[in-house]
Amino acid sequence: MVTVEAASESVGVCARQGYLETAVVVDADGATIVALRGDGAGIHTLDSAHDKAYTSVSFKSDTIALEDRGRGEIAPLSKLPHVLFFGGGVVIKLGDETIGAIGASGAPGAKLDDTCARWTGENSR
Amino acid sequence: MVTVEAASESVGVCARQGYLETAVVVDADGATIVALRGDGAGIHTLDSAHDKAYTSVSFKSDTIALEDRGRGEIAPLSKLPHVLFFGGGVVIKLGDETIGAIGASGAPGAKLDDTCARWTGENSR
Amino acid sequence: MVTVEAASESVGVCARQGYLETAVVVDADGATIVALRGDGAGIHTLDSAHDKAYTSVSFKSDTIALEDRGRGEIAPLSKLPHVLFFGGGVVIKLGDETIGAIGASGAPGAKLDDTCARWTGENSR
Amino acid sequence: MVTVEAASESVGVCARQGYLETAVVVDADGATIVALRGDGAGIHTLDSAHDKAYTSVSFKSDTIALEDRGRGEIAPLSKLPHVLFFGGGVVIKLGDETIGAIGASGAPGAKLDDTCARWTGENSR
Amino acid sequence: MVTVEAASESVGVCARQGYLETAVVVDADGATIVALRGDGAGIHTLDSAHDKAYTSVSFKSDTIALEDRGRGEIAPLSKLPHVLFFGGGVVIKLGDETIGAIGASGAPGAKLDDTCARWTGENSR
Amino acid sequence: MVTVEAASESVGVCARQGYLETAVVVDADGATIVALRGDGAGIHTLDSAHDKAYTSVSFKSDTIALEDRGRGEIAPLSKLPHVLFFGGGVVIKLGDETIGAIGASGAPGAKLDDTCARWTGENSR
Amino acid sequence: MVTVEAASESVGVCARQGYLETAVVVDADGATIVALRGDGAGIHTLDSAHDKAYTSVSFKSDTIALEDRGRGEIAPLSKLPHVLFFGGGVVIKLGDETIGAIGASGAPGAKLDDTCARWTGENSR
Amino acid sequence: MVTVEAASESVGVCARQGYLETAVVVDADGATIVALRGDGAGIHTLDSAHDKAYTSVSFKSDTIALEDRGRGEIAPLSKLPHVLFFGGGVVIKLGDETIGAIGASGAPGAKLDDTCARWTGENSR
Repeated sequence: MVTVEAASESVGVCARQGYLETAVVVDADGATIVALRGDGAGIHTLDSAHDKAYTSVSFKSDTIALEDRGRGEIAPLSKLPHVLFFGGGVVIKLGDETIGAIGASGAPGAKLDDTCARWTGENSR
Repeated sequence: MVTVEAASESVGVCARQGYLETAVVVDADGATIVALRGDGAGIHTLDSAHDKAYTSVSFKSDTIALEDRGRGEIAPLSKLPHVLFFGGGVVIKLGDETIGAIGASGAPGAKLDDTCARWTGENSR
Repeated sequence: MVTVEAASESVGVCARQGYLETAVVVDADGATIVALRGDGAGIHTLDSAHDKAYTSVSFKSDTIALEDRGRGEIAPLSKLPHVLFFGGGVVIKLGDETIGAIGASGAPGAKLDDTCARWTGENSR
Repeated sequence: MVTVEAASESVGVCARQGYLETAVVVDADGATIVALRGDGAGIHTLDSAHDKAYTSVSFKSDTIALEDRGRGEIAPLSKLPHVLFFGGGVVIKLGDETIGAIGASGAPGAKLDDTCARWTGENSR
Repeated sequence: MVTVEAASESVGVCARQGYLETAVVVDADGATIVALRGDGAGIHTLDSAHDKAYTSVSFKSDTIALEDRGRGEIAPLSKLPHVLFFGGGVVIKLGDETIGAIGASGAPGAKLDDTCARWTGENSR
Repeated sequence: MVTVEAASESVGVCARQGYLETAVVVDADGATIVALRGDGAGIHTLDSAHDKAYTSVSFKSDTIALEDRGRGEIAPLSKLPHVLFFGGGVVIKLGDETIGAIGASGAPGAKLDDTCARWTGENSR
Repeated sequence: MVTVEAASESVGVCARQGYLETAVVVDADGATIVALRGDGAGIHTLDSAHDKAYTSVSFKSDTIALEDRGRGEIAPLSKLPHVLFFGGGVVIKLGDETIGAIGASGAPGAKLDDTCARWTGENSR
Repeated sequence: MVTVEAASESVGVCARQGYLETAVVVDADGATIVALRGDGAGIHTLDSAHDKAYTSVSFKSDTIALEDRGRGEIAPLSKLPHVLFFGGGVVIKLGDETIGAIGASGAPGAKLDDTCARWTGENSR
């Protein structure tokens, strides 16, 4: 399963940089395909990584690109279940179609999470 | 059922403009009568369209008219279940009485969602 | 949208027999595509029709065919969220693949619900 | 408000017989209009009385009349949210239409709860 | 039951001013004793009135007195279940002890809700 | 706090018999006052001990005395939130009034749990 | 991560026998470490596999060994969140201590799920 | 059990200063080991103390040190379940490893809660 490898790689890449990371891959409906919690990753990272992936696939956008709108115009939507405007969610595309997303959580900052997820996401595109 | 046609039209009008839209019609208690998720509409639009309709019927106001108060005076109420101060919810009236609402979600912006819903809502009034 | 027509037809067929019916169509992940609550259909039919469709698509079987196992061998699974071993859920297939399901609820008995859903389901196959 | 009086009476009638009773009146969607927890009534009676009323209005039947089917044919439906096949829920009708229900809980047995609710329900019909 | 009268009065006072009001009385644990939804009061007022009462009794303070701190220093607490820093919750005291609270919701503004609840609350002290 | 000692003792008594026990003390509304999870006690014992105590205080009866009715006449009530007809919940009384309950979970059987809880409960009466 | 390999293997072993399987590994608190949903595995298998693992680690027993008690003596506990007395959950031990569990779901029968999980579980012991 | 003593002490220290305090100790997964609600402590303190402890252990940081980032950079994470960026959560360490946390709630201000928890937390380190 390519998704397992993608998630494992995401967790591993971050781990090698010293971050305790969790990665979640979701399908087009935001349902979990793979969830991996790295050793020592905080318990909230299961929710956080999932919600980044969920938001990414549902908005068809990497979550880091949604952060500005998420603080402004579309801020009210951040109360919806699983919607999280915070970097670390990266879309997975098949051609032009968004077919899933990967979310990473655990590094100290949205940009670092985004890098871990993006590297994987881009490789799997 | 007129509500099905209203919802279908709302989704269709938006689709013709290229937006992947979901529409939900609720009754006076905010319970779903019709929900239609258009092809490709993000999974969060089911929650978003429902909550716009719920808020609209419960506050007896189109949600776009609540946005300013929702950022200010009544902001605390936005934590209540299903309360969403974000354009796209339009009341359905019978005479002076609010008997339901339609919510639309999926277009890139509250005003666009409002237009899709309003067009339908006004026609069904 | 073919799913809207399928759901409308399911509600309509039952209505013509005097049953107050709700129909829900879900995709392969059990997420709602269409929900239609007929006039006067009890509020619980929204949950019931959804859960029949969810169970049908997840177990890749019409729910009426699961009733016996649901009372016996697999009874413990009936506590899982949205799992309902009760007739009225019918799979929607594309070739050999189960791509969704329709659930109907409101008639006085699982077999009657099954008939309403099945008729539609079979027509849309 | 007639509903307040109906609920108060239901709690009072039971109290005079020594039962610590809770009564809930719901509208056609099963949403609460009145809830009254009598002195000393167990905390679960808030859920129980509500769910009896919800079930009654949604199935358009007093719940005591559903008990047999609830143990047999329609037993699977008892897992749905707020569905409770247990005496004490009585429909409120306007002519032939079920417009609400009252649920009573707290007496030691479904029949006693039913009597408290029924007396009120019938008076308010 | 004095609480029923207090809640009825709160709903009635507001109704005479043209507001569609809901009132909820809770005990020291924030559990509902009485809930009354006035004719036409929005469905969200059931949650809102309850949460105002819950917050009032748990913080041992009328909620209107918490609004400033609720926007500032203690804002993070507003995400806790049922915590709502919005006027309309009034404590019920027995001597110096807070033994319950009443919450009112439905008027167009926290101050109006507070007045309806306070009038009752003060009378019942 | 006497409740802490009661719960500690309940966990300790069971531990000395080799059972990994959790004890929960609730007040008259079923809200937690003390929860103690013994070393190695399964994660479900937090829910189980709480629900035994909740049921005990709400039904004003030790739960072991409810087991027979819980399998028969009042079985439908076992679906209500936190209602658990399973031995190990013991009422705490002040004179004739039930003012709380203690629940114990973790021993291999309802009777053993009941003994741990009862010993404490009786001492605290 | 050994847990990823264990879960992958469990899904893979079942897949080679034609079953669409999901595997979940949890830690001693029943929190997810790994979740893998195989291609085509029903959406309910995410809940089912998790709950089997949760039950297994919390009761310190493979779930297939709990089925008989789960239908009898301890049946009331099956209503607790995530408790599922159904084969397919296998404990992971470190010496004598239960440190986690793996749950498998998707094969047509508890015994088959148990075999997939057990094979992995035993290898990882 | 050292954790019971730690929690008792935390509640007691605050009580002697006149604050009605609740303390919760969680393990590395954020699951409750001990919860103690002091006499008169508001019902929301059970949630608040738990969530402070949960956040502390999951972010491996006392919560008072997270307040600034919680209002800024990582504010979106405050919507995740049980994440609360508010002083009063203190990590419990074994050497360098965060193995749990204690949360305190009830004093009028995050700093006071932090002092109660910290005193205990530091003593138990």
